[in-house]
Amino acid sequence: RTLRIGLIPGDGIGKEVIPAGRRILEALPASLGLKFEFVNLQAGFETFEKTGAALPDETVQILKSDCDGALFGAVSSPTTPVKGYSSPIVALRKKLDLYANVRPVKTVFNAPKPIDMVIVRENTEDLYVKEEKTYDTPEGKVAEAIKRISQRASSRIATMAGEIALRRQKIRAAGSPSIHKGPLVTITHKSNVLSQTDGLFRATSKEALANPRFLSVAVEEQIVDSMVYKLFRQPEAYDVIVAPNLYGDILSDGAAALVGSLGLVPSANVGEGFAIGEPCHGSAPDIMGQGIANPIATLRSAALMLEFLNEEEAAAKIYAAVDANLSEGKLLSPDLGGKAKTEEVVQDILRRL
Amino acid sequence: RTLRIGLIPGDGIGKEVIPAGRRILEALPASLGLKFEFVNLQAGFETFEKTGAALPDETVQILKSDCDGALFGAVSSPTTPVKGYSSPIVALRKKLDLYANVRPVKTVFNAPKPIDMVIVRENTEDLYVKEEKTYDTPEGKVAEAIKRISQRASSRIATMAGEIALRRQKIRAAGSPSIHKGPLVTITHKSNVLSQTDGLFRATSKEALANPRFLSVAVEEQIVDSMVYKLFRQPEAYDVIVAPNLYGDILSDGAAALVGSLGLVPSANVGEGFAIGEPCHGSAPDIMGQGIANPIATLRSAALMLEFLNEEEAAAKIYAAVDANLSEGKLLSPDLGGKAKTEEVVQDILRRL
Ligand SMILES: CC(C)[C@H](C(=O)O)[C@@H](O)C(=O)O
Ligand SMILES: CC(C)[C@H](C(=O)O)[C@@H](O)C(=O)O
Repeated sequence: RTLRIGLIPGDGIGKEVIPAGRRILEALPASLGLKFEFVNLQAGFETFEKTGAALPDETVQILKSDCDGALFGAVSSPTTPVKGYSSPIVALRKKLDLYANVRPVKTVFNAPKPIDMVIVRENTEDLYVKEEKTYDTPEGKVAEAIKRISQRASSRIATMAGEIALRRQKIRAAGSPSIHKGPLVTITHKSNVLSQTDGLFRATSKEALANPRFLSVAVEEQIVDSMVYKLFRQPEAYDVIVAPNLYGDILSDGAAALVGSLGLVPSANVGEGFAIGEPCHGSAPDIMGQGIANPIATLRSAALMLEFLNEEEAAAKIYAAVDANLSEGKLLSPDLGGKAKTEEVVQDILRRL
Repeated sequence: RTLRIGLIPGDGIGKEVIPAGRRILEALPASLGLKFEFVNLQAGFETFEKTGAALPDETVQILKSDCDGALFGAVSSPTTPVKGYSSPIVALRKKLDLYANVRPVKTVFNAPKPIDMVIVRENTEDLYVKEEKTYDTPEGKVAEAIKRISQRASSRIATMAGEIALRRQKIRAAGSPSIHKGPLVTITHKSNVLSQTDGLFRATSKEALANPRFLSVAVEEQIVDSMVYKLFRQPEAYDVIVAPNLYGDILSDGAAALVGSLGLVPSANVGEGFAIGEPCHGSAPDIMGQGIANPIATLRSAALMLEFLNEEEAAAKIYAAVDANLSEGKLLSPDLGGKAKTEEVVQDILRRL
């Protein structure tokens, strides 16, 4: 099987880590019977400055018509709004209907406090619909944004969370060491304040997870503020956390802090038959160009993309090589307290493949 | 000076901790020249079940016309929406225009990782305006909520954050041990996605903090997801964090996790000349009635209320007594790993007053 993969490095360290993603895919053992073709694609703030579009139509078209998946690096988002610019990754998620953002957060086995969870974040709606307006009042400006939650999107994201919980349980049952007894999905919301929107997310998620298919999956819920508290007090208790877009965004950065660095945490933006791997970290302008970015989030994102393209065996090989590098702990990038360059980390991991 | 204080225990352990708040106020040394009168007031889920109103008009009227401040315990919020019920504390904040929710999070001096920050949360708008609607579409139900951010509310909350930063610096300069060099306000938002609403919060906060009055205050900003990450990676770096309502809600629970227990973290809902002290924890139905609730969040909330009623000396006495109890670490409630009952903790702290 040949997979065509779009490569979208974006800005900053995106340009340093995406090539590492490409290399690990190319280095997978031939015995897997997988071949890759790569297409270089543009997006990001630099692209915006050059072409006037942060996400050129061409990029979207090629991904849609010509690719099986993609790797996305990072984009710098100016905090001061720049006229005409808006985040290309948010747009891409919507344009390709990549309705799930899947973010596994996992310590390697020998960590003092083992954590093994995955955050399943709804990826197309909530406040990310970006429908905003501003008006003047006698007391100054007022701005409003719409938070939109639909039954359809809530149902499919909860179903995805249930499927992931089952799949994780299957892998555990196959002998992979684990801290979890059975599959668990935790629904996160704030329905005590937002009874209609988050109430709909909650009710729909519960309903979707009540499907007999998920009979073996335990389901509980947490109010988002309390979820953040628990995430830090007893992270080992969580298996799969499902959340609307914005809470998912916040929770996944919080969970990343627990495993030591955003540089370790991958994500996949998943739709029907398509997946974009994307490291959770940003473009990190402070360290760009120094060759010290941690490539692990990207390598794991490449694996995660493969999982959702049904290449679980190939994915497992990448995970194992990364875990071996971390367990040994000799060649670590500076964000993990080490001194290794990106290139040294990549070589160490390729060697273990 | 005589202060009239409304007591609103609410539900669950609210009934166990609010009496402790009353006792510490009564036990303050006579030399301070402070007297207290107390008024018992109703609110909460039980009140709703009895009277049909979670926040009876009478409670609001008496607070408005007859009190200088209040102590609020906690209310149980049913996660499954109950018709006609909505959170009385959210309503109270709006009805009394208590526009700031101030949440100091601080370890005692001998903690392994010292933290000393205060989260200043906008308390009247954002998604908490609770303007929601639900409609049917061919693909199922869709619900929408309004997130509203105003220049007026953003400006006054940022100004409050600046004032608090200055006041903290003054106390530090007076010799109180501290981990901070100078006053710092960190503005939290998500303007990379919500350019108008959070963009307005960001721009207005910056403008308010550019006032020459705050010349000595350093100002920085953090995107909310990154803020949660940093909160856990380098909490010691933060002094005053200012945030819109919902992010403030989430961040304060996160910060509470850092100091070991929500049972330690106080808050004050502050308006012009009025303050309601409120522990950050909930009604904790799992431990209610056992006499083991941690009273410290409430005792500190009573002190915080006094601070905002300009009784800083009295407040300092309460803080010192609580810190002494924690530093010694002999009489701690179960949430802190101890075995002491609420009553024993209260007596130990009263003794140190
Ligand atoms: C860059 C930003 C728009 C994005 C988001 O909020 O989704 C990022 O934080 C992420 O988590 O991928
Ligand atoms: C109970 C709930 C409505 C409330 C809030 O969200 O403000 C609580 O979480 C708090 O922080 O005081």
